[in-house]
Amino acid sequence: MKAIIVKPPNPGAEVKDIELSQEVKPGQVRIKTLYTGICGTDRGIVSGKITFSRPQENASELILGHEAMGVVEEVGEGVERFKKGDLVVPVVRRGCGICLNCKIGRPDFCETGKFVEAGIRGLNGFMREEFVDDVMYLVRVPEPIKDIGMLTEPLSNVVKAVDEILNIQNRMIWTCGDSTYECRNALVVGSGPIGTFFSLLLRTNGFNVYLLNKRDPSPTEAYIAERMSTTFYNTTQGLEKLPSADVIVDTTGYPSAFLPLLKKFKKNAILVLFGTSSGDKVEIDADLVTFFVENNIAVVGSVNASKEHFREAVNYLTLWKEKYGSLVPRMITSMVSPENGPEVVSKKIPGEIKTVIKWS
Amino acid sequence: MKAIIVKPPNPGAEVKDIELSQEVKPGQVRIKTLYTGICGTDRGIVSGKITFSRPQENASELILGHEAMGVVEEVGEGVERFKKGDLVVPVVRRGCGICLNCKIGRPDFCETGKFVEAGIRGLNGFMREEFVDDVMYLVRVPEPIKDIGMLTEPLSNVVKAVDEILNIQNRMIWTCGDSTYECRNALVVGSGPIGTFFSLLLRTNGFNVYLLNKRDPSPTEAYIAERMSTTFYNTTQGLEKLPSADVIVDTTGYPSAFLPLLKKFKKNAILVLFGTSSGDKVEIDADLVTFFVENNIAVVGSVNASKEHFREAVNYLTLWKEKYGSLVPRMITSMVSPENGPEVVSKKIPGEIKTVIKWS
Amino acid sequence: MKAIIVKPPNPGAEVKDIELSQEVKPGQVRIKTLYTGICGTDRGIVSGKITFSRPQENASELILGHEAMGVVEEVGEGVERFKKGDLVVPVVRRGCGICLNCKIGRPDFCETGKFVEAGIRGLNGFMREEFVDDVMYLVRVPEPIKDIGMLTEPLSNVVKAVDEILNIQNRMIWTCGDSTYECRNALVVGSGPIGTFFSLLLRTNGFNVYLLNKRDPSPTEAYIAERMSTTFYNTTQGLEKLPSADVIVDTTGYPSAFLPLLKKFKKNAILVLFGTSSGDKVEIDADLVTFFVENNIAVVGSVNASKEHFREAVNYLTLWKEKYGSLVPRMITSMVSPENGPEVVSKKIPGEIKTVIKWS
Amino acid sequence: MKAIIVKPPNPGAEVKDIELSQEVKPGQVRIKTLYTGICGTDRGIVSGKITFSRPQENASELILGHEAMGVVEEVGEGVERFKKGDLVVPVVRRGCGICLNCKIGRPDFCETGKFVEAGIRGLNGFMREEFVDDVMYLVRVPEPIKDIGMLTEPLSNVVKAVDEILNIQNRMIWTCGDSTYECRNALVVGSGPIGTFFSLLLRTNGFNVYLLNKRDPSPTEAYIAERMSTTFYNTTQGLEKLPSADVIVDTTGYPSAFLPLLKKFKKNAILVLFGTSSGDKVEIDADLVTFFVENNIAVVGSVNASKEHFREAVNYLTLWKEKYGSLVPRMITSMVSPENGPEVVSKKIPGEIKTVIKWS
Repeated sequence: MKAIIVKPPNPGAEVKDIELSQEVKPGQVRIKTLYTGICGTDRGIVSGKITFSRPQENASELILGHEAMGVVEEVGEGVERFKKGDLVVPVVRRGCGICLNCKIGRPDFCETGKFVEAGIRGLNGFMREEFVDDVMYLVRVPEPIKDIGMLTEPLSNVVKAVDEILNIQNRMIWTCGDSTYECRNALVVGSGPIGTFFSLLLRTNGFNVYLLNKRDPSPTEAYIAERMSTTFYNTTQGLEKLPSADVIVDTTGYPSAFLPLLKKFKKNAILVLFGTSSGDKVEIDADLVTFFVENNIAVVGSVNASKEHFREAVNYLTLWKEKYGSLVPRMITSMVSPENGPEVVSKKIPGEIKTVIKWS
Repeated sequence: MKAIIVKPPNPGAEVKDIELSQEVKPGQVRIKTLYTGICGTDRGIVSGKITFSRPQENASELILGHEAMGVVEEVGEGVERFKKGDLVVPVVRRGCGICLNCKIGRPDFCETGKFVEAGIRGLNGFMREEFVDDVMYLVRVPEPIKDIGMLTEPLSNVVKAVDEILNIQNRMIWTCGDSTYECRNALVVGSGPIGTFFSLLLRTNGFNVYLLNKRDPSPTEAYIAERMSTTFYNTTQGLEKLPSADVIVDTTGYPSAFLPLLKKFKKNAILVLFGTSSGDKVEIDADLVTFFVENNIAVVGSVNASKEHFREAVNYLTLWKEKYGSLVPRMITSMVSPENGPEVVSKKIPGEIKTVIKWS
Repeated sequence: MKAIIVKPPNPGAEVKDIELSQEVKPGQVRIKTLYTGICGTDRGIVSGKITFSRPQENASELILGHEAMGVVEEVGEGVERFKKGDLVVPVVRRGCGICLNCKIGRPDFCETGKFVEAGIRGLNGFMREEFVDDVMYLVRVPEPIKDIGMLTEPLSNVVKAVDEILNIQNRMIWTCGDSTYECRNALVVGSGPIGTFFSLLLRTNGFNVYLLNKRDPSPTEAYIAERMSTTFYNTTQGLEKLPSADVIVDTTGYPSAFLPLLKKFKKNAILVLFGTSSGDKVEIDADLVTFFVENNIAVVGSVNASKEHFREAVNYLTLWKEKYGSLVPRMITSMVSPENGPEVVSKKIPGEIKTVIKWS
Repeated sequence: MKAIIVKPPNPGAEVKDIELSQEVKPGQVRIKTLYTGICGTDRGIVSGKITFSRPQENASELILGHEAMGVVEEVGEGVERFKKGDLVVPVVRRGCGICLNCKIGRPDFCETGKFVEAGIRGLNGFMREEFVDDVMYLVRVPEPIKDIGMLTEPLSNVVKAVDEILNIQNRMIWTCGDSTYECRNALVVGSGPIGTFFSLLLRTNGFNVYLLNKRDPSPTEAYIAERMSTTFYNTTQGLEKLPSADVIVDTTGYPSAFLPLLKKFKKNAILVLFGTSSGDKVEIDADLVTFFVENNIAVVGSVNASKEHFREAVNYLTLWKEKYGSLVPRMITSMVSPENGPEVVSKKIPGEIKTVIKWS
């Protein structure tokens, strides 16, 4: 079957016809891949910049792809939860089996680092015509979101990060006088798919959201921002018109992008670090530390998601489909064939929010 | 009566005979001051470096002092909780009455900043022979810790900070396989009274603790470290011999002191910012941000304490008195008369851990 | 305008033309009522069995109705959150302003009992052509659920109760090895609208749900149960075929209905009491107490909901509309005119799940 | 060596000279038993009433005893945490290794029931001259509480139960306006060692405590109650003089003892079931269910404790020794030799609070 493969740590990606006849064992199902999404991690692997990527043990190539949706084709012995025709999304990280967090199903908090991640490190991914997986790693997707279900994985990471915000802020009363979060302001730095999902999710939780970039919005971005009642803010105009902030989410990884915003922080605020990059340098001083102390400021880095977060992501996509109609579908700005996969995974398409490969 | 007064924002402190005849209203008690401790905040006010200090409304002078213990002398109408002769410690911060956190008794999380703090801003402190206070601001101290009860206030802030650690780390399984914290390592930067209290409290919670300074310990520090089964670590020897860390607590406020330690962090670790200073500058880069993201690292600044934390601090002092005997009493390295207050509040005594003024 | 009024504690209800010219003050909006639902509490008031019902202060009559949806007609000064044409649902209970829970927006946990409840005690309800309310008591409803938005109130109480389950069970690891609740079984006693909502909500949270009644399902009930992948179970066949239970929810109020089920409890299970009734008596013994102790069993009674629960209820209705299509709309088994209100509020319609009055 | 053995399910106990030469393997220590306490469970086993008691696999006898303190005599290879001469208390329950709660060190919440309990079921207990145990099951006790350290086990179960109270009540604001629990009233039913420990622990957490029995206090009980500022209340005088209650703790297991007290419940209150018994029967009705619903009442059964609770119990004993002097030591009303063990384990000593066997 066709697959998109990489040879980390070497750069490059190719479409290849592979033979990978996988038997469906008890407790497993065979899944025909429908769509796979492309994200920065895929591009980091293909460019050779992500150095932790590696093939499965004893293999020289890795099948790329960790954002996927497929349809169940064949059901193994003893499987009751799924039947032929069900739409499913696979989880990415599979735990080490050693640390307590992995034992309770939270490999996103793995302590040993001995996990594998499909399409990233140590486990083949989903950019191929079909794959076999254990049912414990699969999440069901309802029919009405068949067109956007492949966005479950990126959204799941955002669901986990917002979970972190709410868990951590539970250290005090952070809800408003009417029990909602409607008095809280969130600034989201970066307007790609992750920034958009943070905005949607925080908005759904009641927050007032400002989506920040250092340029004006594209027409699609402007539509999305208005449809979900958020403000798209061009930071090159200065920060004066931004409100004071209870949450700042960085999706860029550039300290120079989010550090100047910290002066907008209210007391007891929280900074969420989600984006990763390299190279950028900034100076911090003792006054910033004092500011964090005097105002009970929290910071949290957040990575990955549990299966429960995938389930919740599916529910949010379903809710948003009913509430916002074409908003989320419009985030998929390009749909390409597997043959064009190596090209789009190597280079961003102009105006892209999310590029998706259609497998069947 | 005698009092130590300051005129913020001007530097300087003096002993003065003041007339401040306070009536004991219903719900109040009159307290004879026994001891007041001196801390960095007092010295910052006296040096003029702390710019937020201010007298009570309509006053030109502020009575200094926020670490106090006294004995109840006179009990107002309707007071049932205290009787003459009871030892008490007053809380420092009194809430704004507006924000939700203040309404539920958590002014340490005040959102408006419209609180007052005895001896610091907007409310006279306790460096005087007696004071009158509402019972709701008083915490009882048992007789056996009469000699160390004035340490309740500094400890209360540490109790709150450790509360923050445990609350925030609840985002995952952070206890060990035997339900304790005995597999967790904490590095505490700075070996003053605050660093010592962090070490004692984390130790009491089961953590393995390393107390860090850029010099060898004084004999008293060496005694204290050994007595509580912690390691005093001189960082000038390099960081190689330190274990990997689940918690780093900074009590110095200098980013150059704690940033190099972050390379010791394990996954899911937490950095607690408690110390404040100024001037120090360091460079951070995008790789540090990526490290925080990939490893779910949290940071929290912590300030002040609630009355419940004062109560718990009293319990910890009592426990440590029984368990460690003279350890905590030995933290009081000097006891001076009020007349010497202005001098010791202006300048640190060599070898000082905690200097205390004895009022009667 | 037309209104349905009662004179508690006397039985009876009537449609009456009332004059109640309410001005729209700053921060308020005028709402044209679209629909009001009828529930057991309304019927308890009309039958005279609910003894705590009372008119507003200085009034002799009470306007009935607490399950409502309307459309904003007029917006008061300073109102930014709503505009003409917005669909809204009002919350029912308004806090005492004294206890801490009411101060932070959680009157569902009021400690003093000095709250009022629209249409129930001390505050006129929504069974009238229009009403004026403060924006802080209003929750927005999106257009796509205009036909079912009046179900927000009953669902909000279920959202709070499930919140209680998850909060309380946090005392241990209660999620399954894959981080979801898919290994947990819930038995819901009673198949009315509340039982149906508990089933839907627990199902959406991953639980396996059994909906229990002492008869076979009606065709509509059978459809609903199958559509949401739950099992409708007739308890007259004995309890043998029921699985062991992690949650039992009683919506009947009859101890004789839920007590026999407790033998199905697994360790660490929880019983939720939601239904209220009277008259029924059963005997319990020390062995039941021992069973609760040895197995860490919890019980919680749950009443009312916060505004945040109303918001979440709106989101669930939206999600279910997309996912299950006509399932929730089919719960509305009758739609009557205000003139027929007194009749349907006095007597259940055969086959009724939810009866709704259409106001415009 | 001498040991007290039982042959469950048969009644009876005897002192016997057993040969049980246990080697000290790596990670283990040999412990010389100093004291073992006697509790209701021991007596239930000896009377034959507790039917779940059983010997270790392939054994016909069980060594009794689960409340113990000893001193380390010999240290196995690789043991760093303990050294010869250290005082230690062993935990009782050892997990199933299968369920998630046991995997994270919380066998007190074991889901499978496949745990063993030293001296109770499936594992020999500590009523013998010495025993060998893994260090992971041992908790260190400081010298100053050598005389009361054997009370750690019963207290640990109370610590867990109070943990349950505070965890569950976190569902709302339950702290008072000053952040403490000083406005909350607790009624503790039963004045044995468990009732006394509940009173001490709730008192230490700030609660106002009433210790209830259906008789006047013994002189020792009167002393203890006064010393810890609680009220000993004889319920035969009626309940009128009791205050309304936020917590009721039952330590008797008799529903007829605690059910009449429920009329004292405030809104949002919690009933803790800790005692177990049999035979007693009472009638409850639908009005009680309605009361639970309308007032958000919670109930929780609590059994056993984690190792962390043992650690905290040691800290509380140490604190109370300093604060209350001889209060806790006076709870040990008799100290007997092993030879007298079978007699005292068969029958309560008049005036007994806690009877202890001294082994060396």
